[in-house]
Formats: sequence, structure tokens, C-alpha cells
Amino acid sequence: MGIRLATDQERLLRSLETYASIGATGNGGVTRLALSDEDRQVRDRFAADASDAGLDVRIDDFGNMIARRPGIEELPPIQIGSHLDSVRRGGKFDGALGVLGGLEVARVLQQANATTRHPIEIINWTNEEGVRFEPAMMGSGVAYGVFDRQWADDRTDRDGVRLGDALDAIGYRGEEANRLTPGAAYLEIHVEQGPVLDDAGTAVGIVEGILGITWINVVVEGQADHAGPSPMVTRRDALSAAAELITMLESLAISSGPPVVGTVGRLAPDPGLINVVPGRVEMSVDLRHQTDDQLESLVAEFAARAEAIAERRRVQLTLDRFWTSPATTFDHRVVEAVASAAKSASPSADRLWSGAGHDAKYAADAGPAGMIFVRSRGGLSHCEEEHSDGGDILAGVATLLEATLALDASLDASE
Amino acid sequence: MGIRLATDQERLLRSLETYASIGATGNGGVTRLALSDEDRQVRDRFAADASDAGLDVRIDDFGNMIARRPGIEELPPIQIGSHLDSVRRGGKFDGALGVLGGLEVARVLQQANATTRHPIEIINWTNEEGVRFEPAMMGSGVAYGVFDRQWADDRTDRDGVRLGDALDAIGYRGEEANRLTPGAAYLEIHVEQGPVLDDAGTAVGIVEGILGITWINVVVEGQADHAGPSPMVTRRDALSAAAELITMLESLAISSGPPVVGTVGRLAPDPGLINVVPGRVEMSVDLRHQTDDQLESLVAEFAARAEAIAERRRVQLTLDRFWTSPATTFDHRVVEAVASAAKSASPSADRLWSGAGHDAKYAADAGPAGMIFVRSRGGLSHCEEEHSDGGDILAGVATLLEATLALDASLDASE
Repeated sequence: MGIRLATDQERLLRSLETYASIGATGNGGVTRLALSDEDRQVRDRFAADASDAGLDVRIDDFGNMIARRPGIEELPPIQIGSHLDSVRRGGKFDGALGVLGGLEVARVLQQANATTRHPIEIINWTNEEGVRFEPAMMGSGVAYGVFDRQWADDRTDRDGVRLGDALDAIGYRGEEANRLTPGAAYLEIHVEQGPVLDDAGTAVGIVEGILGITWINVVVEGQADHAGPSPMVTRRDALSAAAELITMLESLAISSGPPVVGTVGRLAPDPGLINVVPGRVEMSVDLRHQTDDQLESLVAEFAARAEAIAERRRVQLTLDRFWTSPATTFDHRVVEAVASAAKSASPSADRLWSGAGHDAKYAADAGPAGMIFVRSRGGLSHCEEEHSDGGDILAGVATLLEATLALDASLDASE
Repeated sequence: MGIRLATDQERLLRSLETYASIGATGNGGVTRLALSDEDRQVRDRFAADASDAGLDVRIDDFGNMIARRPGIEELPPIQIGSHLDSVRRGGKFDGALGVLGGLEVARVLQQANATTRHPIEIINWTNEEGVRFEPAMMGSGVAYGVFDRQWADDRTDRDGVRLGDALDAIGYRGEEANRLTPGAAYLEIHVEQGPVLDDAGTAVGIVEGILGITWINVVVEGQADHAGPSPMVTRRDALSAAAELITMLESLAISSGPPVVGTVGRLAPDPGLINVVPGRVEMSVDLRHQTDDQLESLVAEFAARAEAIAERRRVQLTLDRFWTSPATTFDHRVVEAVASAAKSASPSADRLWSGAGHDAKYAADAGPAGMIFVRSRGGLSHCEEEHSDGGDILAGVATLLEATLALDASLDASE
């Protein structure tokens, strides 16, 4: 590729603004719940823009949209995906950056009449957020065989509407024959949703993987007592025990070092009266680590320390580990391609881990994948205040373009 | 008083069982919510029993029942009071012991044709528990001028029923002219509702006072964040800060020594989602100490330590101290009369503080007052499992009788 290709700054930012006007909240954010009318509008717009860019748009049987630009060799596609749905009053770049960043790559190639060895596919995944219909990352989950399509169709929103009916209603039920085929590599560019790049003063992040996540329901059972007549030393206070578990979890996560995180988000004392020592507490624990082995060790260490606290405080502890998302380490060739690509666009680019799930996770389970993060001001996300500067967005998309071209050139034809 | 008077064990325990059959839950407890039909039944029974014991029963304008036995001198009455209402599925001795213990004292005097210098009044206070109509200790509060009667009448239960209407409906609206007159002394015998006597292996407790209580609403404001992408060190986790406040409060109360207690009973994190770092926590703090000065110092120390925690954790703290019940130190003559009286009935009797409020509190604000506690198995209270052994009940009522006679003999005629 002797010609130097470049992204079109004005076109990219204008696209982002145009898409942000669909479901705009008036406060700089967007509400585009999966399979809502706003989702239909933004899908229509993407289908039109992709066609205008010379791409062949197909829809699979779960509404995933795949816009394809052919390659010149008989090779599997390089896929660039993300999502156009949002949370309620979410940010305008979360997801949209990944789809429109991919579209910009295709437009650059189209405008330059450039050829690639591999086909390039730009994907808009159905229902990444999982806000209206749980769980999250459903479209990529169906595409990569994690979820059965019929099961996913049967999910309902809080009004009892079936996902499958909502998909039919907006006219985005495609053909099973249009499903994704195995790719040579998968790339996703996304706002960081955390403060690491902002704190480091860096526009672009080279994502090394996605943390493994485990969720534990913790029940602490002590003895309810009157807040007055029950002396401190005879109490079996479930909330004081829970408090000690919370600070222990925090210390454990801090001492494990970044990117390990531990969080108690939900907590309810019972009976929850001002003058009654709580006899029972139910709380959630969210633990995340880089590898499955490390996550297992972390959970074991938490459980051991929790048991010691419970024993000392004479309370009963029940840990129900009810959900785990395995850790993902991105393919080193993809990570290094992103790292090389970032060198010119964002020389100070940092390597970091994603603490949150993305569609790239399911892609990584199926084949080589990687991600690019773009600095998000203050790390704010899933809110109208979410913001990334235009220069950072351009640096990220330039990295995406370079990485795509590098992978196209380097990935072995046998793949 | 040369004749040795003694309580009638069988009569006392039979009375307690009879009253326990009104509103019996079937599991050994009672439900006699204030001004319910069960309350009417138990009031009718008490009125009949008191008349049978030769007492003159009068009802004041808030339904407080006062059963009087005349004295032989022109002296203010010695008053013995407690309550016949209960919580839902409460214990059968909580409150009833105090009224029937007083009735037993009157019966002993009646049977022996004994005279006292002071009139003796046995009181059944309206709505001590405050379960159906808040707040608690309402009848004594009205009688001692803490609450305006009209205001108290206007309290409503959760079905919107006015207290005053419920009082009229059960036929226990009496005359303002029947209100309590200032007494020479007030005595109340009550189950401990805590484990101190049980742990000490002692039947009877000499109560030195009622702890001052203060309630604080604590709001911790940090920053809500994704549980995944937000690194531990940059978080401003309101729940971790709250957890540290809870264990700090516990340490502070323990290091202050008995009977100081500190409790967090209510706590709610916001948004309360498993994968979101809580940005805000609202929680209650209940602090109790022996004197108002000590309570003030305790609150100040808590606030100072809390502020240091908040500062270190970069969260905002708001403390709203919205209610305080001043501390009560019982009159030393009454306390010593109880202590002397307990010597024969319960030689190992302990001195202790009441952590919970009782009608004796308002009485103590108005004149000399004291309390006798009876051992409660395991400290269990406000539940059907509440239990005191017959021997302990007898020891307590014997102490009440002795203390009443001693006060009758010793209290100066000028009072």
C-alpha cells in the first residue's frame, strides 16, 4: 500500500453528529433503546450511508447489520463492529463511534479506490446494551453461537414485549443465510468508559483484553436486636459484618493492582429499621481480573477472608457465585497491529484492559480480535455528559484504519 | 409496717396467663395493637380486675387508665405504670408485667387490709408501643405534657384511621379532669428486652436511668461509576465510605464502654445495581449514652471521625441530626429503694441502664421515678419467643412491692 490513506476529519465528525441527532435527548446525549423506533431510524440511516459508500448491506435473522466491501483475494473478511443502540440518556459516542469509525475506514478505501486482500465488513450489532432486553451483547452472542436465536427472540422488555416481535415490527428481521461468516480478524473502536486514558493524558488506548467478571450474591445472617438494650459485645450485627466485607474487598482489589476491580453495588439490610440491629444483609460482589486463573484465586482469597470475618463476628455467610464471564486476552497479532498503528496517530498511546464487556469479547472467543479505546473525558459514560474530543476521535479512527490495513497486509492467506 | 406482706405467686402468674390469652397468637405471643378490639378487651379485663381489688378506676381524655387505692395521709400518690398494648406478634410480658405487677401490689395490700401513707395508683398507659400510631409512649407523653392531646388524637394508622376516632370507638375516651396528678414517685417493672441480666445470671435489675438517644441521617455522596472500567484508586465509592463509617461507629461505641451503643439499621446505596459503583448512600445512625453531655461528646467524636474518613475518600458527607431523646438519670432515692428492696428477692441483682425508652422516662422528667428490670431469656423481645421465668417474675414483683412500701414509708410528707 504505497499510497498513504487518511481519514476525513470533517466527514467523520459530521456523521457522528448526524447519528447523535437520532434519539437526541436535548442535553447532548441520546436514547436509542434496542429495537425502538429510534433504533429503526438509525439503522435506516446506516443502511443508506453504507450503500452510498458502495458497501453491500445484509441483515441476518437477528437483525445484525453487515456492510461488506469485497477484497481481491479469496480470504475471510476483516470485520469492524460495534453498536448503534444506547442506554437511556446515554452518550452519543458509546457504540456509534465503532460503527461510524468502521464506515469511515470503508469510505476512505472507497474514495481512494483502494483494494484490500480481505473483504472488509462493518457490523452494527443488535442490542449490545441489554437495557430494554437483557442480557447485553445479544446480537454478537447470537452471531457467535453463545445464545440460541429463538431463546433471544423470546426475551421480553418490562412491558412484556417480545424481542422477536419488536425486531419484526421495525422491519429488521433478515435471513439466517446472511449471518456472519468466520473472519480473519475483528476490530472494535470504542470510548474507554473509564478515566485511565484521561488521567494518563493519552488519546488512544491499545486494549490487551477484557477482564473476566464474576458475580457473587452474599448473604450475611446474624441476629436482629433492639438498637438500645443489646450491648455492643453480644451483638451479631449483620450490617457491621457486611461493612467489614466491603472494606476488605476494596483492600483486596487495591492490593491486587490494576486492572483488578472489586465492587459492592447492591446492599440491603433486614429489617432495615433505624432502631433495630440488622439481622440479615444481602449484597452483591462484582470481581474482575485479567485471566480466569487469577480471577479464581481472587475469588478464593475473598471467600477465605470473608469466612474469617464471619467466624470472628459469629455470623453465617453464604456466597452464591451465580454468574461468570471468562477473561479474554486479545490475539497478540491484532494487539500489536493496533499498537503499531497507534504510533503515528497517538504516539503516547497506552496499553490497558477493558473492565467492561464489548461485542469484541464474543468475537475474540471465535477468532483473532482486538480493540482500540478513545479517551473519554473524566471517564464518564452511560450519561449525557459522556464526551470525547474530536482530535481524540480522529486519532482513534486513524489507528483503526492503519491497523485494518496492516492486518490486511500481514495476516496469512491460510487463515 | 410490722407485718411482712408477700406476693401471691399463683395469682400473679395466672393473671399474666389470662391477659396473654387476649390477642394470643397461638405461638406464645400476643398481638394487642393500641386501640384495637384486643386492646378494648384487655382494658375491660383490667378495669374489672382493678375494681374487684377495691381500686377506683378512672379514664383520662386520652384513654390512660388509672386505678387508685387511697392512702391515709394527704400525700401525692405513688404511681406504678406500664402498658397493655403490644407490637405485632410481641411477647406476653412486655408491658403487661408492669400493669399486673402493680395490680398484684394493690391486691396484696387489699388482702392484708394494709394501709399506706400515700395513695397507690396503677396506670395502664395508652399506646406505649407506637406500632399502629407513631410515636411511641404517647399516653404518658400526653399525661406529662410532652404531646398535645389534640395532636395525638390526629395521628393516623396506615389505613388512615385517626387515633382519636379509634379511641372513641373502643369506648375509652375519658375526662380531662381524670388526668394524672403529680406523684410522689413513679415505679415501672418491665422485662429487660436485652441480655444483660441473662448473661449475668441475675433475676432482677436495678435500673439507673434511660440512655439518651440521638438519630442522625447520614448522606454520603461520591461518584457513580461502572464497576468494570473505573480503577479502584480513582473511585469515590459512597458505599465503601459508608462501610468505613459503620465499622468506625462500632469501634467508637465499643471503646466508649457499656452501656453506650451505636447502630446503623437503615442503609440504601444508589443506584443499587450490581455493576455500578454506588454514587450515593443514605443511612441511619442511632447513638445512645448515659448523660446528655456524654451523648453530645459522642456525637461530636463520631462527626469528626466521619469527616476525616470522608475527606480521605473524597466524598461529601451530610449529617442531619433529626431527633434526640434526652438522657434520664433516675432519682437516687427511688433507685436506692429498688436496690434495697431487691436484696431479699434477688440478692445478686445488678444495676444497669435501659437502652430503650419506657413510659418511666416521661414520668422521670416530671418527678422521682425508677424502674425494675426482670431477666428476659436470651434478651429476646418484641417477638413471640420473649420469655421470663416465673421465679424471676416473682422476684421482680416482690422487689416492686418492697420498694413501693419503702418509698411510702420514707418519702417526706412535704413532697
